[in-house]
Amino acid sequence: MRLKAVIAYDGTAYHGFQRQAPEREPSIQGTLEGALRKIGQAGGVLGAGRTDAGVHASGQVIAFDVNWRHGVADLQRALNATLPADIAVLELEQATDTFHPRYDAVSRTYRYRLSHTRVRNPLLTRYALHVPQELDVEALRRAVAHLIGTHDFAAFGQPTVGESTTRSLYRAEVNAEGSLIAIELEANGFLYRMVRRIVGTLIPIGRGERTEADFVAILQAADPHRAGPAVAPQGLCLTQVNY
Amino acid sequence: MRLKAVIAYDGTAYHGFQRQAPEREPSIQGTLEGALRKIGQAGGVLGAGRTDAGVHASGQVIAFDVNWRHGVADLQRALNATLPADIAVLELEQATDTFHPRYDAVSRTYRYRLSHTRVRNPLLTRYALHVPQELDVEALRRAVAHLIGTHDFAAFGQPTVGESTTRSLYRAEVNAEGSLIAIELEANGFLYRMVRRIVGTLIPIGRGERTEADFVAILQAADPHRAGPAVAPQGLCLTQVNY
Repeated sequence: MRLKAVIAYDGTAYHGFQRQAPEREPSIQGTLEGALRKIGQAGGVLGAGRTDAGVHASGQVIAFDVNWRHGVADLQRALNATLPADIAVLELEQATDTFHPRYDAVSRTYRYRLSHTRVRNPLLTRYALHVPQELDVEALRRAVAHLIGTHDFAAFGQPTVGESTTRSLYRAEVNAEGSLIAIELEANGFLYRMVRRIVGTLIPIGRGERTEADFVAILQAADPHRAGPAVAPQGLCLTQVNY
Repeated sequence: MRLKAVIAYDGTAYHGFQRQAPEREPSIQGTLEGALRKIGQAGGVLGAGRTDAGVHASGQVIAFDVNWRHGVADLQRALNATLPADIAVLELEQATDTFHPRYDAVSRTYRYRLSHTRVRNPLLTRYALHVPQELDVEALRRAVAHLIGTHDFAAFGQPTVGESTTRSLYRAEVNAEGSLIAIELEANGFLYRMVRRIVGTLIPIGRGERTEADFVAILQAADPHRAGPAVAPQGLCLTQVNY
């Protein structure tokens, strides 16, 4: 029986979603597989998104096969009792035998959080990037709107699979609340470090050091040397995967 | 020159605000004094509230004496560059020579956060208590309203200083946003573990296991054996001190 699960995790203590061989530091995938083994399930875990070291998730989707006689709710309770406090199975349900969380996904949403205050806030260190200047939220909004549509995103990353750097971005939002700014991007797929490099390119625009026109030129040039650097992982969270 | 500072900290790694002798585990006070020593200032640090191990602060107030030739903004930058990432000086200003953050305070505000979802949320573990049942926010609001005024709060804690268990509570709010509930209490002073014991008494009311009348009876009886247990420290945050 194949199961589909929505999971959340604090990625701080992990080297990323993907298990490495040999496993030198813990991965989300390896920890999930370890928890399944402890309750007598030996199969592998498939994930929708290969989040990097330190990246969080509130809506990652995984799939795995089990041989389980009890209800799905019992399995979810057993898994959550076995998993460490920084990983949880939020939803669990039966899927079709061929369900694949990565290949079947039609879109993924990532959120990057910035804390723009003069002094860093120790209560946000773990889940947001501190930017010690006030950012112009409207300038960020105007810039991200140019990302919507089907583009060659080579400026912002390399492909994780295959050769194409073309992706379709469906939604780009900038939400501000107090000193926090959340940049939310939904696309059919993301290149390696794409969200973090987009944010690294947006920050100088928010500071007024670069313009909306610069951002458009960087996107259109499809030249990775002109974009900003990838910002730190702790601000990033995989919030949703749609099927 | 005496300085007054508003500081924030993530209390997870500390055994509390107060320095212990000998210092076996780090304290906020000891860490602040260590940072001051590193920039050539040998004095002690006074705090407004003695937060317990694991309790956070977004608006703790401290005072210390310095012999500093440069501006206060330079000192703030030097301190923030020296302090670890989980402590920050948000504001720093000159105070009168006799300013005492504890004795001069007219009120303190604490906030306790509860996350009420069936499955624990790993991204809230550090800053909220997980309650695996839905809580009745209106029932919590009706109960906390009875705390407002001058009462003998002996039901909910012991005095940290002196003998009196009478305190004046000025404000009691319950704010709900999504799956988070924030209980905010402002008083002229708090007994030892008072906020955490109030919350421990409120949770069964939110669950419908105890009533508003029970809460009033517990408060009026001033008997610590009838109140609930002190809930975990990670949900608690000292948010403001007024002078």
